[in-house]
Amino acid sequence: MSDFTATDHLMMARALRLAERGAFTARPNPMVGCVIAHGDEVVGEGFHRRAGEAHAEVVALEAAGERAKGATVYVTLEPCAHTGRTGPCADALAAAGVVRVVAAMRDPFPEVDGAGFDRLSAAGIEVAHGLMEAQARHLNRGYLSRIVRGRPWVRVKLATSIDGRSALASGESKWISCEASRQDVQQWRARAGAIVTGAGTVLADDPSLTVRLGDDTPFEPPLRVVLDPGLATIHRGRVREGDAPTLYVHAPQTKLTRGISAQLAVVEVDHGRFDLNAVLKLLAGRGINEVHVEAGATLAAAFMDAGLVDELLLYVAPVLLGSKARPLFDGLNIEHMADRMQMEIVDSRVIGGDIRVLLQPRG
Amino acid sequence: MSDFTATDHLMMARALRLAERGAFTARPNPMVGCVIAHGDEVVGEGFHRRAGEAHAEVVALEAAGERAKGATVYVTLEPCAHTGRTGPCADALAAAGVVRVVAAMRDPFPEVDGAGFDRLSAAGIEVAHGLMEAQARHLNRGYLSRIVRGRPWVRVKLATSIDGRSALASGESKWISCEASRQDVQQWRARAGAIVTGAGTVLADDPSLTVRLGDDTPFEPPLRVVLDPGLATIHRGRVREGDAPTLYVHAPQTKLTRGISAQLAVVEVDHGRFDLNAVLKLLAGRGINEVHVEAGATLAAAFMDAGLVDELLLYVAPVLLGSKARPLFDGLNIEHMADRMQMEIVDSRVIGGDIRVLLQPRG
Repeated sequence: MSDFTATDHLMMARALRLAERGAFTARPNPMVGCVIAHGDEVVGEGFHRRAGEAHAEVVALEAAGERAKGATVYVTLEPCAHTGRTGPCADALAAAGVVRVVAAMRDPFPEVDGAGFDRLSAAGIEVAHGLMEAQARHLNRGYLSRIVRGRPWVRVKLATSIDGRSALASGESKWISCEASRQDVQQWRARAGAIVTGAGTVLADDPSLTVRLGDDTPFEPPLRVVLDPGLATIHRGRVREGDAPTLYVHAPQTKLTRGISAQLAVVEVDHGRFDLNAVLKLLAGRGINEVHVEAGATLAAAFMDAGLVDELLLYVAPVLLGSKARPLFDGLNIEHMADRMQMEIVDSRVIGGDIRVLLQPRG
Repeated sequence: MSDFTATDHLMMARALRLAERGAFTARPNPMVGCVIAHGDEVVGEGFHRRAGEAHAEVVALEAAGERAKGATVYVTLEPCAHTGRTGPCADALAAAGVVRVVAAMRDPFPEVDGAGFDRLSAAGIEVAHGLMEAQARHLNRGYLSRIVRGRPWVRVKLATSIDGRSALASGESKWISCEASRQDVQQWRARAGAIVTGAGTVLADDPSLTVRLGDDTPFEPPLRVVLDPGLATIHRGRVREGDAPTLYVHAPQTKLTRGISAQLAVVEVDHGRFDLNAVLKLLAGRGINEVHVEAGATLAAAFMDAGLVDELLLYVAPVLLGSKARPLFDGLNIEHMADRMQMEIVDSRVIGGDIRVLLQPRG
């Protein structure tokens, strides 16, 4: 890793903030931000807004014009070296006469993966990478998961009482979390490529699982995915309504009745439970980077039990529901302290009257 | 309420910080801090360290000497008007020639309760109160509870997994919370007049329930109180060891065997459960302002069920213990959402790898 200056850090932080502006629209592409500067002076900047539209580097180069000559380029991901829907960014940077490119990280996408850096170096441009790499990886954890692991990043969202209960014994769960938390969830839905739920949740709560940001921020509606072995919920529910697409995943043996207009996919079921690895592989095949699971305690426990939860998004409400109420993860059985599932807190903050905690399994 | 200036606020904030320095030693007296100033210039300050020693006002007057003349006095509690173990502070302030006294709040102690203000006014001193009163009340919530409600302020401390479990089904509960949290608890123990536990916890965990601050900060060892109907634990346990006193509360019918040297008290038992109101009344009678409950899920639920919990101190560890593990409150049954126990977050922060949450019932 090279030595980076304070100015380098400031510029890359700015590029990361820019990248994040593509969070609701860039997928399946990664979020990328780019700043072009002479020393402290920014002469152009941009981000990648939407697949098929200009890459961040091209937007920034256009803004900089002639002033790109002799400049340093800060970009949150390795510039591409291949011709996809747009031409190679590495060539565009070289043609513009920039002298130094600082990238937060290498792009593991097979057609890039170092080739972008090589192309820049071959053009006589100074190349450095690894600046604020952890932040860049966190930003694109969905994209990186799909490219490197072949499955989407999985976030499980749950609302819980402070005594770890998801609902009363009767099933009643409305109004556990506050209005501010329910609004906050919309941001997390919007950045997901798919929102996954179970047939039980559709029957019990009839959620629409659409994104309601409350302002005119543009977003791509995430795919709604209902895990429903017997397609018991296919003819009803708000999850079929609205502008967002809906995909029903069912068991191979399920008989398809006439008049089904929904998107369908088949995944193996074992003892009444879907093969969740296969579900995720299916979604990765559709270009889904981030999966946002909003389901009940049983499906949440199944994802957890299968070791497939990459992050847990908890809205903890300051209310007690008592020891008869339903557990947060139903069917998650741990006998010995050595088998406890140790996580770590990535972020914790007060949202309205609740506490929002983002956790990841301890690696 | 009078109008207070920015300087008034700064000075009172300083007095409140001073008062807090008596948190581990002043009881059964309230914590009191005092700042004497001419405008922005502090000429004397002090706090009440220990019952029987000088009140905050007297310490500050001694520090100010002749410069108290014409000064403004900021004090977190109404100056006393009666002769206790020390003379009336109101008289001392008048004798020193101060011209204005600003108090955060009136002292509800029967022998003061406005008489201090009257005495100051009668001496020609300008008197104002109500500045930062909420903070002052929060600071002395234990003292105020004992004086006004006739019972101590009750804090229940619990360590929980993020899925609301206090222990595995086997009872195993060690190392749920991190070392930083276990150290943090010492501060809360130190400010309590009594640490209450149950016989079950003594048998299962054998805690010492002493204060281990890890430095040489002076503190008064809190009374350790074991609720043990049949005195099953009286002959053993670390809770009997060390410098702190220990009180065993037992049922009226329990036969006392020979050779018991411990302090004993009797409280009525109904269906195997102590009358917790009577326990608290007993402790108030001993001058206990704050009770710190460190017990298991059953006693915690009993306090909660009786509506006797004034604050809940939760150390939430980022670990999952699963749905077979023991609940945080055992025996707390809530059937309908309308009966949920609604609380509010007073404070939430990361302590080491855990989240510490302080909650109060929504009033």
